[in-house]
Amino acid sequence: MKTSIAHQCYNSPMKAHVWVMPKRTVLDPQGQTIQHALSGLGYAAVKDVRQGKFFVLNLDGWNHDEAQKQLERISKEVLTNLVIEEYRFEIVD
Amino acid sequence: MKTSIAHQCYNSPMKAHVWVMPKRTVLDPQGQTIQHALSGLGYAAVKDVRQGKFFVLNLDGWNHDEAQKQLERISKEVLTNLVIEEYRFEIVD
Repeated sequence: MKTSIAHQCYNSPMKAHVWVMPKRTVLDPQGQTIQHALSGLGYAAVKDVRQGKFFVLNLDGWNHDEAQKQLERISKEVLTNLVIEEYRFEIVD
Repeated sequence: MKTSIAHQCYNSPMKAHVWVMPKRTVLDPQGQTIQHALSGLGYAAVKDVRQGKFFVLNLDGWNHDEAQKQLERISKEVLTNLVIEEYRFEIVD
């Protein structure tokens, strides 16, 4: 019970991690270039490479629920091009 | 015992995740631009943003120990510019 109240009321600094990746159906030329380079260097066991973006956000002023809601919006509206990319995020308390 | 033998001898397809981030001491203009944009959009609780790269590698032909060793080399020699970036990787069996 104590934890759940703290969760809702106390706005401690948090970190959030956001992954943005090209959709499965979208070609990833950067990833392909790296895969070819690795293959040429002898790393033939690397069959496929996909390259995406990774963001670390420092948050201060939101509780966990608010952060969850705002990060959904930030990921969707700012960090991701939804036509060609998909996102995933986690909040690290 | 069984698992440890399987670990060493059976080369099943695996995935690896590699994170490449600008070093703490290096300015991150992309991250700063995003932080300013978010601040202007009303997300003042986002105090800092760091942007890095995230790679998903599909591997086939290495056992777990080999993959560990090769990924260390790939991360160091191909994916990361060690002067300004640092890396971290995990193998997902």
